[in-house]
Amino acid sequence: MTPTIELAQALIRETSITPEDGNCQPMMRERLQRAGFRCEDMNFENVTNFWAIRGDSGPLLAFAGHTDVVPVGDESQWTHPPFAARLVDGYLHGRGAADMKGSLAAMVVAAERFVEAHPDHDGRIGFLITSDEEGDAYHGTVKVVEALKARGDNIDMALVGEPSSTEVVGDVIKNGRRGSMLGYLTVHGRQGHVAYPHLADNPVHRLAPALAELAATEWDQGNEYFPATSFQVANMNSGTGATNVIPGEARVQFSFRYSTEVTAEQLQERMRAILDRHDLNYRLDFEVKGLPFLTDEGSLVEAAVRAVETVRGRPPVLSTAGGTSDGRFIASIMNSQVVELGPINRTIHQVDECVRAADLDQLTEMYFQLLVALFVRR
Amino acid sequence: MTPTIELAQALIRETSITPEDGNCQPMMRERLQRAGFRCEDMNFENVTNFWAIRGDSGPLLAFAGHTDVVPVGDESQWTHPPFAARLVDGYLHGRGAADMKGSLAAMVVAAERFVEAHPDHDGRIGFLITSDEEGDAYHGTVKVVEALKARGDNIDMALVGEPSSTEVVGDVIKNGRRGSMLGYLTVHGRQGHVAYPHLADNPVHRLAPALAELAATEWDQGNEYFPATSFQVANMNSGTGATNVIPGEARVQFSFRYSTEVTAEQLQERMRAILDRHDLNYRLDFEVKGLPFLTDEGSLVEAAVRAVETVRGRPPVLSTAGGTSDGRFIASIMNSQVVELGPINRTIHQVDECVRAADLDQLTEMYFQLLVALFVRR
Ligand SMILES: [Zn+2]
Ligand SMILES: [Zn+2]
Repeated sequence: MTPTIELAQALIRETSITPEDGNCQPMMRERLQRAGFRCEDMNFENVTNFWAIRGDSGPLLAFAGHTDVVPVGDESQWTHPPFAARLVDGYLHGRGAADMKGSLAAMVVAAERFVEAHPDHDGRIGFLITSDEEGDAYHGTVKVVEALKARGDNIDMALVGEPSSTEVVGDVIKNGRRGSMLGYLTVHGRQGHVAYPHLADNPVHRLAPALAELAATEWDQGNEYFPATSFQVANMNSGTGATNVIPGEARVQFSFRYSTEVTAEQLQERMRAILDRHDLNYRLDFEVKGLPFLTDEGSLVEAAVRAVETVRGRPPVLSTAGGTSDGRFIASIMNSQVVELGPINRTIHQVDECVRAADLDQLTEMYFQLLVALFVRR
Repeated sequence: MTPTIELAQALIRETSITPEDGNCQPMMRERLQRAGFRCEDMNFENVTNFWAIRGDSGPLLAFAGHTDVVPVGDESQWTHPPFAARLVDGYLHGRGAADMKGSLAAMVVAAERFVEAHPDHDGRIGFLITSDEEGDAYHGTVKVVEALKARGDNIDMALVGEPSSTEVVGDVIKNGRRGSMLGYLTVHGRQGHVAYPHLADNPVHRLAPALAELAATEWDQGNEYFPATSFQVANMNSGTGATNVIPGEARVQFSFRYSTEVTAEQLQERMRAILDRHDLNYRLDFEVKGLPFLTDEGSLVEAAVRAVETVRGRPPVLSTAGGTSDGRFIASIMNSQVVELGPINRTIHQVDECVRAADLDQLTEMYFQLLVALFVRR
């Protein structure tokens, strides 16, 4: 039983469904304080966050992560109780094992080891930990980053512990994220009876060709770092429920995941142009959930690649694919370098979430090597 | 106060929301019996129906109608209580005033007058009255017609009292109805996360171009008697409710109203061909609710036109537009001539349903003249 596994188990055994923290953060803070970190509450509304820092000057690398987990769903479907943190055949089982209590344990243990080996390290090491990443995320990382920025504390680099790996721990690190934008379209028609179609104006019939064009549109081809921008309808509905009534409106909720080749404003404009060309009477609202960001230059990506290579003998693939994470807030508000490196994401948010125990130990070593690469003069 | 208005008021004052009859049918039967009709119960399940006949031989004209009414909706929205049958400024107000208790009163009074004036009339006069027209209509007219047919009683001609008029009573009579077919389409895709569109298959995106083609298709151009066949989506939905999930399937419920230029089978085949051409993985189910019928030749249409012309000085327009009625069952099961002639349909199924009292008296006269035209030798 290694220190990382022990701490991961202790964290998993705390029931901390968003925005609950259980006793996770106090546990982490106690360990960090003992290692010389200065810790402080950063709570907003009902969300528990903390900030910890060690070192007085030089570039600041913050480990960023969340103690909250998604609900377990139907608990009877789990092979092992989701908060028991059972270690079976080399796998640590439980909600949060991969996303991301395993990473949190690895970060804490890596930091402990590093400051023990290098008590007078260069630079500064931070921890930015929230209990609201899986939920609205309104009072978590974004608020902490804003507060730090307001008082002049800038995070130069952030290592986010999200499960970035796909087959082998460290095979993929995320050095950016696509932008994310939600949209809500309502097409207005005129309600009527199916027997009198000339007195009505069917909004579904109006919508269909425009939607076909939207679905077929190539928004861009992506670039070296980003896959092509993607438009996806997530929800659509129209109708009164009656079989003989032409509906008065049709509603579509969609999502863009977009590259740095386009801006949110350009996508909005192009969509409006398509709808206008189809002569629709519509209402269209957008909600930009995250701007795209890319960390392609600079010491953090280099150091992360070197750290992974040192531990597993092969460099990771850099990727910007996949969903959003709190990294977007740090990148956009502080203009920080941001990299995500964490365990294999295969079981996250699912029944029987688990992680290979050896992977967490490897991850600990990668985080340790990252600190070495950044903060130990050779 | 005329006999027609008095009887219409009495009928409206019976609360008879589908499939209830209140005391409507007993009231009608008593009057008809006194006029020499032989009446019999034709109840099926919870639906009250009756059949009445007068005369022993010769062609049979049946007056057909329903005593049930649609619900009143928000009663507080009504200017006059919906079952009070108030006569205000020449208008009779109440649920069923136009659809179709006014017609029922006119039929009964017309028959009474006719048999008094011509006690030894040619032919036979029938009444086929149900309390389930506005609902499922499973145990109403269709069952009565089947029972009559099974015992060899054939209706040669049916005059349905549905509100056929648009601006002036008798301006339009319906001499046929379009076919009616419902359809249910499910397009199958593969559910997934919007961040990983390549792992999913969005059924909404698949559906859109096929739906655009269906909405733009000219199914036929109609003909002298029928407007063009119409395809209308009534309900459509897809999505889990979550904004970041690509749905697994999309569902569309639609309705065809079709002319005699196409058959239900042809429409089904053409629709499948379009869906197949778009390479969809789908399930498609149809429900034929009524075959199209046309009564363009023969004594009933001629007599109805003459009756209207006698009363208002102008012939009616013949139309097959509009919704379905029980006339379709009589036409398809008995191959009867079927004509619909009733009051102005502007307020039917709405709050403040009403009918001009004078219109009901004119309608009574039209029904009377119809009987004269058919059954009095000149
Ligand atoms: Zn996470
Ligand atoms: Zn009716």
